[in-house]
Amino acid sequence: MDFVSSLQAAWQQSESMLCVGLDPDPSRLPAHLSGRPDAVLAFCREIVDATAQFACAFKPQIAYFAAARAEDQLEELIGHVHRAHPGKPVILDAKRGDIGATAEQYAREAFERYRADAVTVNPYMGFDSLEPWLAWRDRGVILLCRTSNPGGSDLQALDVGGERLFERIARLAAGPWNTSGQLGLVVGATFPAELARVRAIAGDLPLLVPGIGAQGGDVEATVRAGGRRMIVNSSRAILYAGSGEGFAAAAAAAARATRDALRKALARI
Amino acid sequence: MDFVSSLQAAWQQSESMLCVGLDPDPSRLPAHLSGRPDAVLAFCREIVDATAQFACAFKPQIAYFAAARAEDQLEELIGHVHRAHPGKPVILDAKRGDIGATAEQYAREAFERYRADAVTVNPYMGFDSLEPWLAWRDRGVILLCRTSNPGGSDLQALDVGGERLFERIARLAAGPWNTSGQLGLVVGATFPAELARVRAIAGDLPLLVPGIGAQGGDVEATVRAGGRRMIVNSSRAILYAGSGEGFAAAAAAAARATRDALRKALARI
Repeated sequence: MDFVSSLQAAWQQSESMLCVGLDPDPSRLPAHLSGRPDAVLAFCREIVDATAQFACAFKPQIAYFAAARAEDQLEELIGHVHRAHPGKPVILDAKRGDIGATAEQYAREAFERYRADAVTVNPYMGFDSLEPWLAWRDRGVILLCRTSNPGGSDLQALDVGGERLFERIARLAAGPWNTSGQLGLVVGATFPAELARVRAIAGDLPLLVPGIGAQGGDVEATVRAGGRRMIVNSSRAILYAGSGEGFAAAAAAAARATRDALRKALARI
Repeated sequence: MDFVSSLQAAWQQSESMLCVGLDPDPSRLPAHLSGRPDAVLAFCREIVDATAQFACAFKPQIAYFAAARAEDQLEELIGHVHRAHPGKPVILDAKRGDIGATAEQYAREAFERYRADAVTVNPYMGFDSLEPWLAWRDRGVILLCRTSNPGGSDLQALDVGGERLFERIARLAAGPWNTSGQLGLVVGATFPAELARVRAIAGDLPLLVPGIGAQGGDVEATVRAGGRRMIVNSSRAILYAGSGEGFAAAAAAAARATRDALRKALARI
């Protein structure tokens, strides 16, 4: 099944817009795991199993695995999600961006090696840098559009002739760039007015929305701005909800609370 | 020694602006190597040893190693350059770009794990996405500015209020963003007029210039436009100059010819 269809099914089946971000910071792993050679995998696997029922998707952030020489654990983790929680899409957060033969290699990394259902991609190099990704007709490609950090405005908010740069990207992604029908956009929850603007331009494209939880984005405002077709990511607020042996139960409680808050907000619009 | 100083020393010592790009495409490795489990490393190591005397730097492209599950070979390769060719900076071409704790992990990947002297970074997420890189005070951070692909124009050439987006990035990199003094810019050789424009804005920042050789950029025009402080990259035209057992000798001849062409062009300006 292609990414957008499986995401659609996951939204319905889970009745959740929550995506659990898997950012295993080595300095924040529970003490009882941190000596193990597979600490990163063990931590993330328990998080996945504890939170899967409250989530529509998982988003591992590759930097944490790469810095820890834990690529094999990332492969194993994604394999685990596919086996134990079939139908939950895995979005590899890699923010890659390159051209030609190099982009083909990055696509092989994400889709063949890691078997991700979708990947985040940086659009700065333009449409031909996306083509090697789009050649994978059933996989999702989620373009950075309006990121959740303050410095996101430095370039993304520049006026490029009657619209801002992130609006131009949303317009291209909703139109000529979406040759596979599998594009989505990253739009931070920290700027609800801009999220609403992207939604207005991008129609029903899936929006991956980081920035609630630890980054302070407001759930109500996010849902009012972005509507239904969102993958609302929370990482640290779930991963590190607890710190000791009960970390997975604490993560489950945090995931449930976030899912419920998203549901409640959705019922009000 | 910091990146810019060691680059300066390498330019002088080698009298070369050539950077050899290490993009080991598995489908193009010489037949006698391709069965080996360490084929990628063996290939790149021979290329490095054969071309080092003609080059000021090496630029491994991480995608080729990641797609082939060959991160360990990339570590080993960079270690080899440092040991066997001390003083030749290694630029890890990774085009990373993310924020906060994630960017810190990417910086650990590039600088701690791979021991790169410099890394390529995508500026789309703005200044705060660069800060974790700039915290490594002696390492180079080379920002995508005007890339060598046709689609590079899609966003980079947009007018952002009296200047184009890539010009804005050059201005920021030459000014407020350069808190470490170790910034450089990626500017393709395929657009000499824009290379000249970046040079005019960016003063003496090092420019990493891909696009000569296989991508068709002209050496004379590149040198006229970009002047002395360039790291002129060639990958495929050197790596695949030969295809059989003599691949390294063919690569050396191609590297020497490119170095000479760059020298000659430089003597004319």
